Amino acid sequence: MSKLTAEQVQRICDKVDRNFAKQVELLKAVVSVPSLRGAEAPAQHLLEHELRSRGYSVESFAIDETLVGKHPAFSPTTVSYDGTINVVGKRAGKDKLAKSIAFNAHIDIVPTGAREEWTNHPFEPSEVDGWLYGRGAGDMKAGLSANIFALDALKDAGFELRGDVQIQSVIEEEITGNGAAMMLALGHTADVLFVPEPTEETLVRANSGVLKFGITVYGIPSHPKNPELGKNAIELAVLVMAHLKKLEERWNAERLQKPLFAAIPNPVSLTIGTITGGEWIASTPAQCRLEGRVGFYPGEDPQARAAEFERHLAEAIQADPAFEGGRAPVLEWVGVMHAGYELAPGSEAEVLLTEARERIDGSKLEAAVMPCYLDAAIFAVHANIPALVYGPIAENIHGVDERVNLESLKRVTKTMAVFAAEWCGFDDTL
Amino acid sequence: MSKLTAEQVQRICDKVDRNFAKQVELLKAVVSVPSLRGAEAPAQHLLEHELRSRGYSVESFAIDETLVGKHPAFSPTTVSYDGTINVVGKRAGKDKLAKSIAFNAHIDIVPTGAREEWTNHPFEPSEVDGWLYGRGAGDMKAGLSANIFALDALKDAGFELRGDVQIQSVIEEEITGNGAAMMLALGHTADVLFVPEPTEETLVRANSGVLKFGITVYGIPSHPKNPELGKNAIELAVLVMAHLKKLEERWNAERLQKPLFAAIPNPVSLTIGTITGGEWIASTPAQCRLEGRVGFYPGEDPQARAAEFERHLAEAIQADPAFEGGRAPVLEWVGVMHAGYELAPGSEAEVLLTEARERIDGSKLEAAVMPCYLDAAIFAVHANIPALVYGPIAENIHGVDERVNLESLKRVTKTMAVFAAEWCGFDDTL
Repeated sequence: MSKLTAEQVQRICDKVDRNFAKQVELLKAVVSVPSLRGAEAPAQHLLEHELRSRGYSVESFAIDETLVGKHPAFSPTTVSYDGTINVVGKRAGKDKLAKSIAFNAHIDIVPTGAREEWTNHPFEPSEVDGWLYGRGAGDMKAGLSANIFALDALKDAGFELRGDVQIQSVIEEEITGNGAAMMLALGHTADVLFVPEPTEETLVRANSGVLKFGITVYGIPSHPKNPELGKNAIELAVLVMAHLKKLEERWNAERLQKPLFAAIPNPVSLTIGTITGGEWIASTPAQCRLEGRVGFYPGEDPQARAAEFERHLAEAIQADPAFEGGRAPVLEWVGVMHAGYELAPGSEAEVLLTEARERIDGSKLEAAVMPCYLDAAIFAVHANIPALVYGPIAENIHGVDERVNLESLKRVTKTMAVFAAEWCGFDDTL
Repeated sequence: MSKLTAEQVQRICDKVDRNFAKQVELLKAVVSVPSLRGAEAPAQHLLEHELRSRGYSVESFAIDETLVGKHPAFSPTTVSYDGTINVVGKRAGKDKLAKSIAFNAHIDIVPTGAREEWTNHPFEPSEVDGWLYGRGAGDMKAGLSANIFALDALKDAGFELRGDVQIQSVIEEEITGNGAAMMLALGHTADVLFVPEPTEETLVRANSGVLKFGITVYGIPSHPKNPELGKNAIELAVLVMAHLKKLEERWNAERLQKPLFAAIPNPVSLTIGTITGGEWIASTPAQCRLEGRVGFYPGEDPQARAAEFERHLAEAIQADPAFEGGRAPVLEWVGVMHAGYELAPGSEAEVLLTEARERIDGSKLEAAVMPCYLDAAIFAVHANIPALVYGPIAENIHGVDERVNLESLKRVTKTMAVFAAEWCGFDDTL
């Protein structure tokens, strides 16, 4: 494996610096497109254009719904995937024996939450004091820009990579992971996967397995003048939440046996994300719907955890007199049902990334656990591909005033470029 | 006051019987029109037509929004009243000294709740074993049909009423009472108000004052990988519900000092009717909205009760560490803010109704408390008009498979006709 000289590293960094205004411009353009679930197409078309104009060979494809429930990488979905778009741009290296790299990012974002709480419009990105604000700026459109501009810098600096490179832009990371699953199912893999999620410039050592559930709780509607004739579905949903909290406690207690997770106070993080119940202010509500997510530990079977969840809920309902005589709550799996992964320390990829970071930043690469779902798990679990999840400093992702630090993004882009050159091998044409 | 002879009563009853198929036909037609809030116009136009075709002088008018917050009969609203329709049909009696009567019904209905739980379509009324099924069949389109057909029977039986009669069809009973308030504000009153709500053929002795509230609870959104950085608005809303339950307990305890309410287990019936929270399954939710209603005792000032509610909520939030550092929940009044009424026993109207019922049914009139809002309160509280709320047997109002008993409706219609004749005075033209 050939290493870059200090001069070569400097040349790459200079190009990242020189291109950075353009990188931020692209980042802003992508943040301006609200690529919420089901509305990712305009942003994906923008990406297709960016990749084609750089000479990548671009493929776009929908998620194949017939694979959901068949292929183990896919998770349940409640929506149709007709017309969805995943994008991959590829550039072949000239050395078929050289190692390949796939840069991956997801284009989908989560909703803004209470928009009036945002200082500026979440889809009109604003740059203030070295931070770029906007929904998705950190999670993970900054990383997406780094995927493109790391390779741009190498090219502009006169380097040709020997191994194959690809840039993936997938949908559905925030809900099912089925965009990444589709990449995998179509064979868009490589010798290493690099995903610049907003990790605060730490390397993800492990992530959580995640289940996403929907629970419909049934009441018995009545007029409030006779509350005793009804069962309030909202009040029953509150009891369901309390029963689920006990499951969270139990699963959290298991962390003490998991060295990587023992120090995290709430790795399970059973989160009720949405609730909708009742149809009329003055009727005892007939239905209440809860949706949420729950984490578990890498190496565990998501189906087994799902079965445990189902059993816990059924037993708790069974034992709770408030549910007697009513229709039992109905549980559905509505998104990610996937295992977590661990990145074994000391891999060649990690060593190379550690060195790259030191050369850019002078500081040591730290690894950390990220207790949430990551698309990297699709590739790590089902294809045993080393997955480096490493990206810029961002704040308030999924929150209000999400922002990404631009100096951090620049450092990460440089690190990624240096890593890619040394991983794939390079020819210096200058 | 002249009394009907047994023959005259029989003649009236015969006409109710003879017209009953037509009455049920009209009832079905009105139930077929889903006169949900904001969509009452088609049903009101149908009523206008029915009243005009019978020779009533018909007036239709919107609720005047400028009165909301000024006139004490009006309650807060969150919707515009542009284009709303209230209908009143009047027929003048020839004796200006004779007593007048206003028959009142509300045309608005509440939503169906879980439609799949209904045996038949809630807006395709079906007659099974002497019951008519459909949303609004009992509450209170059956009563609305009785208003029309009681007076039809008198006319068909050859009676001319000496006093003025009117038939009112109002909107907004299920949410603000502002339709009835508008009737009152325009002076559409009479010496007695008759409202055939589904009371199981009992007379309403008293009802509750009611407040309708909306509470927006604010969380701090975050990514579930860092639950400690966020505050889950749904979980905070659950705490708000628990704090409100304490208010319900306290207000319910006061019933022991209220002879009419002491035997009702939960007259306050603080009901959370709807909840909506969160925007994404895997984000800690930023907001959660609760809407509901709470009752209190007649004779009490709704503003004072509202202030007590506000104080209770503010103090509970203040004392609850879970809300520390977050934005305090915001309370709004979104519907009825109105006092209850009591019908003093022994009024001339009640005596006459008691006698009418005995002549039709042979049974004694029972009085009962109805712990909910009723439009009758508008007229009773602000204009001191004796209000008779007395109507048919119905089941599952605001619930699933709402139904009204048709034999009961027939008895009520007869009783109303006899009452109207004796209250207003009559000339027998046969």
